[in-house]
Amino acid sequence: MVAPESSRLWRRLMTLAEIGAIPGGGVDRQALTEGEASGWRLVIGWGREAGLHPATDAAGNLFLVLPGRDRAVAPVLLGSHLDTQPTGGRFDGAAGVLAALDAVTDLAASGRVPERDCVVVAWMNEEGSRFAPGMMGSEAFCGVRDLAAIRAVRDADGITVGDALDRFLAGFPDLPRRPLAAPVAAYLELHIEQGPVLEAAGCPVGIVTGIQGKKTVSVCLSGAEGHAGTLAMPERRDAVAAFARCAVALHAAIGGLDPAIKFTIGRVQVTPNAPSVIAREVRFSIDLRHPDNAVLDAAGARIAPLCAAEAAPCTVAVTPLVTAPSNAFDPVLRERIGRAAADLGFRAMPLLSAAGHDARHLAGLCPSAMIFVPCRAGISHAPAEWAEPADLAAGTAVLARLLHDLAFATALPLAGPPG
Amino acid sequence: MVAPESSRLWRRLMTLAEIGAIPGGGVDRQALTEGEASGWRLVIGWGREAGLHPATDAAGNLFLVLPGRDRAVAPVLLGSHLDTQPTGGRFDGAAGVLAALDAVTDLAASGRVPERDCVVVAWMNEEGSRFAPGMMGSEAFCGVRDLAAIRAVRDADGITVGDALDRFLAGFPDLPRRPLAAPVAAYLELHIEQGPVLEAAGCPVGIVTGIQGKKTVSVCLSGAEGHAGTLAMPERRDAVAAFARCAVALHAAIGGLDPAIKFTIGRVQVTPNAPSVIAREVRFSIDLRHPDNAVLDAAGARIAPLCAAEAAPCTVAVTPLVTAPSNAFDPVLRERIGRAAADLGFRAMPLLSAAGHDARHLAGLCPSAMIFVPCRAGISHAPAEWAEPADLAAGTAVLARLLHDLAFATALPLAGPPG
Repeated sequence: MVAPESSRLWRRLMTLAEIGAIPGGGVDRQALTEGEASGWRLVIGWGREAGLHPATDAAGNLFLVLPGRDRAVAPVLLGSHLDTQPTGGRFDGAAGVLAALDAVTDLAASGRVPERDCVVVAWMNEEGSRFAPGMMGSEAFCGVRDLAAIRAVRDADGITVGDALDRFLAGFPDLPRRPLAAPVAAYLELHIEQGPVLEAAGCPVGIVTGIQGKKTVSVCLSGAEGHAGTLAMPERRDAVAAFARCAVALHAAIGGLDPAIKFTIGRVQVTPNAPSVIAREVRFSIDLRHPDNAVLDAAGARIAPLCAAEAAPCTVAVTPLVTAPSNAFDPVLRERIGRAAADLGFRAMPLLSAAGHDARHLAGLCPSAMIFVPCRAGISHAPAEWAEPADLAAGTAVLARLLHDLAFATALPLAGPPG
Repeated sequence: MVAPESSRLWRRLMTLAEIGAIPGGGVDRQALTEGEASGWRLVIGWGREAGLHPATDAAGNLFLVLPGRDRAVAPVLLGSHLDTQPTGGRFDGAAGVLAALDAVTDLAASGRVPERDCVVVAWMNEEGSRFAPGMMGSEAFCGVRDLAAIRAVRDADGITVGDALDRFLAGFPDLPRRPLAAPVAAYLELHIEQGPVLEAAGCPVGIVTGIQGKKTVSVCLSGAEGHAGTLAMPERRDAVAAFARCAVALHAAIGGLDPAIKFTIGRVQVTPNAPSVIAREVRFSIDLRHPDNAVLDAAGARIAPLCAAEAAPCTVAVTPLVTAPSNAFDPVLRERIGRAAADLGFRAMPLLSAAGHDARHLAGLCPSAMIFVPCRAGISHAPAEWAEPADLAAGTAVLARLLHDLAFATALPLAGPPG
């Protein structure tokens, strides 16, 4: 038995983390960049070694296909994403893609041909940091969002997803294109928890019950530019001052609503952003999450009136970007995750995902499930992000067991427990 | 008599404003950029037409010299700056340089040789928007700040003043270098008021009594990065939330101190500035001004304790950048400005400058004075900045009269009025 920290999975995670490495052990490998292309080349190479066939689609998702006996039936998909936040960690996304590759590689090496195709997937732009909002690849694949609308989104430099995607895929001219919105038999995703629950409980395996609801909103405050040394205070329409009042009011009213709410202003863009110029505009992002859709909607509805009350003498425009209600994962697959963990001797517990994942969209297309592994102190989206090799090995073993169930089942979806 | 809007001065102002033109009639021509170099080439060309000799110095100031009879005596300097804010106007700085060029051009055309050199100057980086804080050229020239320290300052892309300056001056290899800190007989600067006083009073000429005191401060709030969807609100150290509390408290306590105070947070930089990442750091600028040095000092002293009280659980570091006490301009030159305006039939009134100017530093080196012209609605540092052609012509005529006094005086400084 290989020690977890000497395993193929762990070595590959650390190798992949060298692409886009930043100080403190973190990774900056944003969507459709040269860094992500390098990640693709590495992962495609590992897939080819295992006999898998790489492919892509019009949305820039990456697939590694182990062909099944009957190519005509819907495949099992399993994976996550390879892109990171600008100051992200080594595990968010990458762990799920490489765990899936590990499981499919072992299946291929067993010599037994599965009933159906087993496909490792890396979704395009899960993070949404370069092009907001994220989960573009899974949204396009699942028909949640039109690809033309996704292609029109621009990054901070004005580059569209369409241009970045065409350039990115031009670097992989030999990859066949799979259709979008093709039938899928089941979807599995392993991910670090990005919260403190599993670590605190001493559980290496989390059975994800669902994903908490999320709203993202963009707010634009418009004032008037002026000279910092000359314009009297009462005559100013200072967008930074208005932003500060709005942010304090929003944090107090929404951030303090109940213990389960998450309220974040993560991006603030000031124009012209010069020390001696009164700002004429501030655009800021709101990320709001709650497991209860009614609370989420009620909190979201307060954003515009709170801003309107505080913004004067500036004007305010509130633009909703994403509303993703909370969802529940497939109960049969959840039961199977628990059974697999028990068979393998790992403690497991159910928990809600506080973070969003591509599995949210797949769950609308096919029976889907997620396996969480603990991460240290709940830290994620930061260089200090860390998962223990043994926990990743446990989660991957459970994923492999579930893949085996699905790969060789003659009929899907799997039936639930009797009674 | 040429109508003011058909004059050489006005046509040149409009031509110069095409370099770095931005929508709405504004200008983006920041220090040591290709745009400023184009401005230099234009102004040097006009100076050469008038028989002036261009030169520079180690701090990247531009000089256009009309030689006097005695080259050994200290020259008269007159000018302003050619750089602008990123969303600046057509008059701030440019009006002063081109008015000075107009006055010296007329003097040269008269055929009479002045007693001493008369030198048009455009100071390097008055605005301080690309490299903060500003007034670098006049500070280096006057020995207020060491050139080595200035050269080490970096812009947002990490480029130092030193590197930008060396590259900029390499584009002007034929310009002789004048020494820094050479004696100056007197300094005159025309500028738009950047406030509403002259317009409201219907006065085309302002006799600037002095410049209000200014402090600039940089504040850094440090928290901890985290995932917007997972980290519970009480466990966060959100630098944006801390910024909002600090900004509200600072505006209330300092911005509301008295009617004469000016308090501005114009620049806010969030790290990593991604919608779904709790910010680990916010750096922001404070620009604080008041005509009374005691009030300025007392207000400045409140910044650090106010931030410390609001920043928790983030930590705060407050770095003072500039403290420029209020100053008074030379009383003899002020009296001469009033007399020149009266002789020419223009209404004139004394007023304090709310904005900082290079003349602040020159006033420590030699007798100095400033002439203000009105600008519409007090708007400056914005594309809507506007000055009437007739007001600019009036201010320039007064400047030319004063230049004449200084150019032909056999002894400087000028004597005050009798009694």
